Amino acid sequence: MRLEVSARGVFPIAPTPFHPDGSIDFDSLDRLVDHYVAIGADGCTILGILGEAPKLDAAEALDIVKRCVRRAKIPFIVGVSAPGFAAMRALARAAMEAGAAAAMIAPPPSLRADDQIVTYYAQAVEAIGADIPFVIQDYPLTLSVVMTPSVIRRIVTDNPSCVMLKHEDWPGLEKITALRGFERDGSMRRVSILTGNGGLFLDFEMERGADGANTGYAFPEMLIELVRFARAGRRDEAHDLFDAHLPLLRYEQQPGVGLAARKYVLMRRGILAHDAQRKPAAGLSPTARAEVDYLLARLARRDARAESR
Amino acid sequence: MRLEVSARGVFPIAPTPFHPDGSIDFDSLDRLVDHYVAIGADGCTILGILGEAPKLDAAEALDIVKRCVRRAKIPFIVGVSAPGFAAMRALARAAMEAGAAAAMIAPPPSLRADDQIVTYYAQAVEAIGADIPFVIQDYPLTLSVVMTPSVIRRIVTDNPSCVMLKHEDWPGLEKITALRGFERDGSMRRVSILTGNGGLFLDFEMERGADGANTGYAFPEMLIELVRFARAGRRDEAHDLFDAHLPLLRYEQQPGVGLAARKYVLMRRGILAHDAQRKPAAGLSPTARAEVDYLLARLARRDARAESR
Amino acid sequence: MRLEVSARGVFPIAPTPFHPDGSIDFDSLDRLVDHYVAIGADGCTILGILGEAPKLDAAEALDIVKRCVRRAKIPFIVGVSAPGFAAMRALARAAMEAGAAAAMIAPPPSLRADDQIVTYYAQAVEAIGADIPFVIQDYPLTLSVVMTPSVIRRIVTDNPSCVMLKHEDWPGLEKITALRGFERDGSMRRVSILTGNGGLFLDFEMERGADGANTGYAFPEMLIELVRFARAGRRDEAHDLFDAHLPLLRYEQQPGVGLAARKYVLMRRGILAHDAQRKPAAGLSPTARAEVDYLLARLARRDARAESR
Amino acid sequence: MRLEVSARGVFPIAPTPFHPDGSIDFDSLDRLVDHYVAIGADGCTILGILGEAPKLDAAEALDIVKRCVRRAKIPFIVGVSAPGFAAMRALARAAMEAGAAAAMIAPPPSLRADDQIVTYYAQAVEAIGADIPFVIQDYPLTLSVVMTPSVIRRIVTDNPSCVMLKHEDWPGLEKITALRGFERDGSMRRVSILTGNGGLFLDFEMERGADGANTGYAFPEMLIELVRFARAGRRDEAHDLFDAHLPLLRYEQQPGVGLAARKYVLMRRGILAHDAQRKPAAGLSPTARAEVDYLLARLARRDARAESR
Repeated sequence: MRLEVSARGVFPIAPTPFHPDGSIDFDSLDRLVDHYVAIGADGCTILGILGEAPKLDAAEALDIVKRCVRRAKIPFIVGVSAPGFAAMRALARAAMEAGAAAAMIAPPPSLRADDQIVTYYAQAVEAIGADIPFVIQDYPLTLSVVMTPSVIRRIVTDNPSCVMLKHEDWPGLEKITALRGFERDGSMRRVSILTGNGGLFLDFEMERGADGANTGYAFPEMLIELVRFARAGRRDEAHDLFDAHLPLLRYEQQPGVGLAARKYVLMRRGILAHDAQRKPAAGLSPTARAEVDYLLARLARRDARAESR
Repeated sequence: MRLEVSARGVFPIAPTPFHPDGSIDFDSLDRLVDHYVAIGADGCTILGILGEAPKLDAAEALDIVKRCVRRAKIPFIVGVSAPGFAAMRALARAAMEAGAAAAMIAPPPSLRADDQIVTYYAQAVEAIGADIPFVIQDYPLTLSVVMTPSVIRRIVTDNPSCVMLKHEDWPGLEKITALRGFERDGSMRRVSILTGNGGLFLDFEMERGADGANTGYAFPEMLIELVRFARAGRRDEAHDLFDAHLPLLRYEQQPGVGLAARKYVLMRRGILAHDAQRKPAAGLSPTARAEVDYLLARLARRDARAESR
Repeated sequence: MRLEVSARGVFPIAPTPFHPDGSIDFDSLDRLVDHYVAIGADGCTILGILGEAPKLDAAEALDIVKRCVRRAKIPFIVGVSAPGFAAMRALARAAMEAGAAAAMIAPPPSLRADDQIVTYYAQAVEAIGADIPFVIQDYPLTLSVVMTPSVIRRIVTDNPSCVMLKHEDWPGLEKITALRGFERDGSMRRVSILTGNGGLFLDFEMERGADGANTGYAFPEMLIELVRFARAGRRDEAHDLFDAHLPLLRYEQQPGVGLAARKYVLMRRGILAHDAQRKPAAGLSPTARAEVDYLLARLARRDARAESR
Repeated sequence: MRLEVSARGVFPIAPTPFHPDGSIDFDSLDRLVDHYVAIGADGCTILGILGEAPKLDAAEALDIVKRCVRRAKIPFIVGVSAPGFAAMRALARAAMEAGAAAAMIAPPPSLRADDQIVTYYAQAVEAIGADIPFVIQDYPLTLSVVMTPSVIRRIVTDNPSCVMLKHEDWPGLEKITALRGFERDGSMRRVSILTGNGGLFLDFEMERGADGANTGYAFPEMLIELVRFARAGRRDEAHDLFDAHLPLLRYEQQPGVGLAARKYVLMRRGILAHDAQRKPAAGLSPTARAEVDYLLARLARRDARAESR
């Protein structure tokens, strides 16, 4: 099962579950994947930045890929970003052999000029092999690499194995519009666009032409429902749903703390056994925990109201 | 009227109104200030980053200060950040002479080590004079300068003229808690903490110990009401109000586009005559405009519902 | 006297002389300019980064321009880089009116993508006026803006008023070769290329096609002699001369300390009355002073040997 | 053989030799290590930034350590910097087990505040184990992390296993003086300080109190001779030697191109079979090659002159 440009819907970004001692909690990983399948996720991304991928060693990373792929029959996108191409290639090829659907590649933070970025992707494709479908991760807030729409067009055009853009520019709404415009005017072939950025603009991103979401919000079922509303043109319902979750969505989008909050919510939901992260990690203070609890309580009240109607 | 450490409430950050030809629109500035007074703002900050201050020349900056100070009897904080101390001093002294209440100083983006930051503020105070009350602007997302709570404590302790922290770290909730903890354990004198960051965390910032808001959201009346709810301990009402505005708040917090959206909302509200910015500027596309209109319509519907109840 | 694309030779970058109390030392400025004229400099750049330009207020900057232009009949390039276009325009127009030859513009550090850089220069030219000849400052080490040869080509092609590149990329030798290649293949019109970077690669830069030097080394007579040797094809003599100065050249190229060392050397040479900088400034420790003295003594010994031969 | 705080002299930074197809050239690595031993190097650093370490996968990195350690009885410092602690620990422990003398750790580029840096080193030591001697790499030009002398003192004081500072701040002379001052005033225990930065300031660094050099200059015999002159107080001879090499030293210090130049010189010297780098790599143009040849010819002429005297 290889990722194709027709991919759409919701691919949750999976956090990597750990035991309190820092070892990987594979049972929680199973539950997490099962949950994604149960709610109807269209795929899943593992070993992304959210997944604490740089904290894993090579063997651990591959173990996670294998566990996920064996567990569920959905397409798994595997983050293979690495400081060097040898490690990137090794993980990408092993992951695909194990049954992954695609590799996701983020540009290293040192890149500045357009040509540097385009060249980097050409070299990355040469390294992993042009037979592996890949996803561009466009995340300037964290990576400090700015890709204009025309740079993305060059990467897409130069590399037939590019099938998806993980869009998380900020602001980014006009970028989606520009890229869809390129497709309409025939200057760029169509690729799938799933949006990240914690989902903070998913309401409008869908209206701008995104194909779905690729983010780690702790209630992926909301993302799925929102995408369905959006596709069905039920605008107000989409926004009503989105707005109800926005307070928590926003809370989870805080750098560092956000991951702690997500793991805590997933633990409270019974999906993860622990909310542990590997070091270095920003934990959740008791006050922050209480804030998340409060947001969850408000969400629950709203759901109760909605059901009673 | 000099700013004191007891300052609290809402100090809106004023955008600078321009005519479409790029000249300053003083009539709109008057209306803006009048609006702040009418809704009960406790003060106002002018010539901040949001105010497009770097795009003004020295004479224009001072003209704006004079116009505001003459117009209203509220304390005006004046952004005096500049690449050099000569320009900073000139504006700070002239502004205070004209009747401003305090100067706000952001660190230059090149600063890294704790000592560099502490030294910079010492030199800035020497430059503007220790008789001028000043506000620390702590905004790492834009300025890329990281001030830990202990660095802020050093600046506050070293400089008796420091009266306020404009807090816009991200994430920043724990920082407020840490600073209030320093006050409680007696290791730092109390200063006013108003929060920026587009107001995106104002709900919890108030609960953590902030004294109010210092941000440019286009409905400052909401900020004022929220601060009152928070102070009165009416937690749910504060959050209900906040959540209703969060979709627009979030939209306005987009870098670049956010200012365009704010000016557009203020124009639609009849406060600004134009939504023009000086170049270089990111405008609002027709689609973005329609998105803001949609968010405004949803807000209006909610207000209507609230009133009919 | 307007700067033209045929400009060549050595344009020293002038430091701004200060009295110990931080006021401008105009007498020393006169002596400095006289020295440049006496040794046969082809022009001079004032108000650059080395000239502590951001530390001056608008009136001071213009005073310096006027003093220089009145003092000498050589072309003066004036650094007009500013956080906003209003200040840039004001200085550029006033400087040209006073008799300056051109404006030098550095990109703001926030620029990343090619289009951002090209757009910035278009807006800057619109701001200062297309009638003012301008110099691109390409200095990624300090400004963190990366301009590829093709970006420079776009700026040169889009803006007929661009007459010179101040080249200080690092490494930068291949860039000179690439740009001269563009001229040869007809894809870019010729502009003058003077090199900065403290002169650290001037030996080879001349061989790669640079038209001369635009840097603040405290012995500009060496730069002039080197450029003459290079133009005359006297390669070994050029390198012998360069190598003799390289230890000091290198010492002066240290960020921060370099300016202190340059001012100290110019003071020891009797050109500046003081080696003072405006705050914030990195001074020269007694040990550093002794190191510079030692380097000067070695240079003097070498000159004595050369003369006795 | 574990690295101790008494370490001094020259530890060349070894480039990693590759075959043109990108595989590791172990025969050249042997010759390189043999050369270091033959000229009297006091130790050697492998898998540094110069050694293209991020381009290697985990198994390759360890193979290089084993090959070196088996080949020579000098202390090998192994660069173990990694995006995460799992990979850092794995390499550090395996390297020590194989016979390495110490681990070198560079801070990740995202660190800003003093406490962040100090905490990072504490966590790194916890990860690799407090029984492994480690070297702080202080290289702000490339890593953009600024460690003041007092931050280094905190790291040294907090972590007894810290034995050496690889000093490559720029400018950095005053930092050496400050650290040696800490030792003299008893506020910091003594650690070894070897300097990097391409050796560009080695002449004065030795006079400031450095214990030697830790850099990749292609003529490490010069570094060794210079260090001996410096220790013997033969100042003029040290500078004469240094100055003769400075033109090439400077050429090799260019980012990217510098490594290509070094490998080319080492190939011309018969030590490396190829000057190949792994991708991504900046190669040496024919013109650049000719420039290096010219510098080598000048060095050879000087040596001939020196011998004939």
